[in-house]
Amino acid sequence: MKLICDGLDLSDAVLKVSKALSSKAANPVLEGIKISAKNDSLILTATDTELTIEKTIKADVLMEGETVVVGKYFVDFAKKLEKEQVELSCLYDGQLQIKYSDSESELQVYPVANFPLVKKSGEENFFEISPEEFKDIVEKTIISCSNDDSRPILKGVLFEITDNSLTSVSLDGFRMSVIKKEIVASGNFKAVIPARTLSEITRLIEKEESKLKIYIQKNSLYLEVENTVIISRLIEGEFVKYGHILPNGFSNSFVIEKDALLSSLERATIVAKNDRYNVVRFDIRENVMTISAKSEVGFVNENVNINLEGKDMVIAFNGKFLSEYLRIVKDEFIKFQLNSPIDPCVLTASGKDDFIYLVLPVSINA
Amino acid sequence: MKLICDGLDLSDAVLKVSKALSSKAANPVLEGIKISAKNDSLILTATDTELTIEKTIKADVLMEGETVVVGKYFVDFAKKLEKEQVELSCLYDGQLQIKYSDSESELQVYPVANFPLVKKSGEENFFEISPEEFKDIVEKTIISCSNDDSRPILKGVLFEITDNSLTSVSLDGFRMSVIKKEIVASGNFKAVIPARTLSEITRLIEKEESKLKIYIQKNSLYLEVENTVIISRLIEGEFVKYGHILPNGFSNSFVIEKDALLSSLERATIVAKNDRYNVVRFDIRENVMTISAKSEVGFVNENVNINLEGKDMVIAFNGKFLSEYLRIVKDEFIKFQLNSPIDPCVLTASGKDDFIYLVLPVSINA
Repeated sequence: MKLICDGLDLSDAVLKVSKALSSKAANPVLEGIKISAKNDSLILTATDTELTIEKTIKADVLMEGETVVVGKYFVDFAKKLEKEQVELSCLYDGQLQIKYSDSESELQVYPVANFPLVKKSGEENFFEISPEEFKDIVEKTIISCSNDDSRPILKGVLFEITDNSLTSVSLDGFRMSVIKKEIVASGNFKAVIPARTLSEITRLIEKEESKLKIYIQKNSLYLEVENTVIISRLIEGEFVKYGHILPNGFSNSFVIEKDALLSSLERATIVAKNDRYNVVRFDIRENVMTISAKSEVGFVNENVNINLEGKDMVIAFNGKFLSEYLRIVKDEFIKFQLNSPIDPCVLTASGKDDFIYLVLPVSINA
Repeated sequence: MKLICDGLDLSDAVLKVSKALSSKAANPVLEGIKISAKNDSLILTATDTELTIEKTIKADVLMEGETVVVGKYFVDFAKKLEKEQVELSCLYDGQLQIKYSDSESELQVYPVANFPLVKKSGEENFFEISPEEFKDIVEKTIISCSNDDSRPILKGVLFEITDNSLTSVSLDGFRMSVIKKEIVASGNFKAVIPARTLSEITRLIEKEESKLKIYIQKNSLYLEVENTVIISRLIEGEFVKYGHILPNGFSNSFVIEKDALLSSLERATIVAKNDRYNVVRFDIRENVMTISAKSEVGFVNENVNINLEGKDMVIAFNGKFLSEYLRIVKDEFIKFQLNSPIDPCVLTASGKDDFIYLVLPVSINA
């Protein structure tokens, strides 16, 4: 293998694919970046077997071939590259030689045969969505994803498509996000996409303007943007039947100014966070809600104006679950809907129901 | 105690003094911030017994008094404060009450009697220096300070003043920084100032424009800027006799472009850093120097132009010690002065000798 390419192109490509590098791989070849020179292109690939990122850049290929270079060092090298031309070639002893300006380096390589084969298959379903809408869905669902390895299905987000309507759902046993959007799709289908894949996609499409076309097949997701291919395994298994979790109706509701609530919650959480459950107490009355928290550190008591429809109530939440939601919501007013201090509470932006956030209260005696 | 002050003033003051908070104190009162209300001022003090920071702000004092509040939580609170008026008062049960807008909080306190007394004494030496010159000295000496607790004197910088000339010296056994500046001083004296004090001072004087007046007495340093008092213990003991370490003359020298050397060194360090000593080899010849490093990861080889006066030489350094120096030097060309591959090497900006950086080579067989 021997090729010449632009230093900045190479640097950008290496940094992009490096997001799929495995950091603590049982199989060391997964810590490597595969370099393939073919026709007039250089293709870089990294995979941890769950997520694969492949980036193609233009190159002057003098001899076709491929190798796998140790990812960590190649990334460090790539960061130092400037605009000059870079020559990559395989030496007789197998090392990868990197030449540019007055510099000559050699890096250790792995056998190409050990690098996993990744390919997308033919017949697929797909849906189209704008980058902004996709980022919005990811931001709002990812907060409710679980980290618990014992229930892997909850470490992803359900994307369910019916009649060009997309419902995205995530839940971790304490809270749930449900988002609905109109989209264009090839049919009716569903998939559970790993949270990590979703956040890497949002990073890679940061500057993308045109619509994304996301292909879904039996076990994997496929997406192409700006000469970058992203392939991810889907999470197998049946997602939780989330429809039953949402209450049918509510006997109490109130509207509250988001920023006032967030400021009060954050101050209350300072004393509450000494406590494992971050217990913040809400004393809901006709025109005012008192937010309080207490621990051995001290005591916080704050009043925020509300407009209650229903009965007075005392309820408590994990302050962290509420503030994570409030920080990503851009609306000025939030609506709380509740039945009792032990039933789930539903939060939406006042006047909208395209994003439902459900949160379980904590016992007031906890 | 009872007082009213501006929220933003309080917030700024708490964050400033918090730099002197002890994080893992044997005595928990050192994790506290002392609050004193007297006349028309609120004085906040934090100390870890080595470094003390005291900040005075204006306040409407309704009842004089003092208390010590748990620093960590008070800092979190202060960060959330806005422009509104804040009322601080001591409750009968000893807690500190914080009231503002529609918020009421109580924080745990420590007994004031346990908080260490810090005072500056009368008769002192002093020197005056501009904030820029002070920051410059700190940046250039701090890289050569030791982290080794077994030789505490090396964890500070020697400030030696003779006839209005300041010499600042730090060394860690592998390298040494020596800086000379003309200043105004009250006499001839010297002090070893802890590295941590120096870096906290540079942070606190970030926006300062007028000259600093730094008082030195037997065991402590005293400095006042913008209603902030900084008191620090000096390191006791005799500093190393650094004069003997500097070679009397050099048989070889060369000048090199700083940016070219730094780029090459950084690339070489990528493969070298797998090695404990970051060994980078310099093959010095008449017009060119070859910088190389080798480890099981790979091999880097780079050429940089030089202008050698003297004989060809092969010498090796810890790459980290050179790149730390090169990153803080602003000059375009650097001069290397050497005698042999086992003698100390001296680096200066070409044409200047107000900042001398001495570095020991490593054995080429290491």
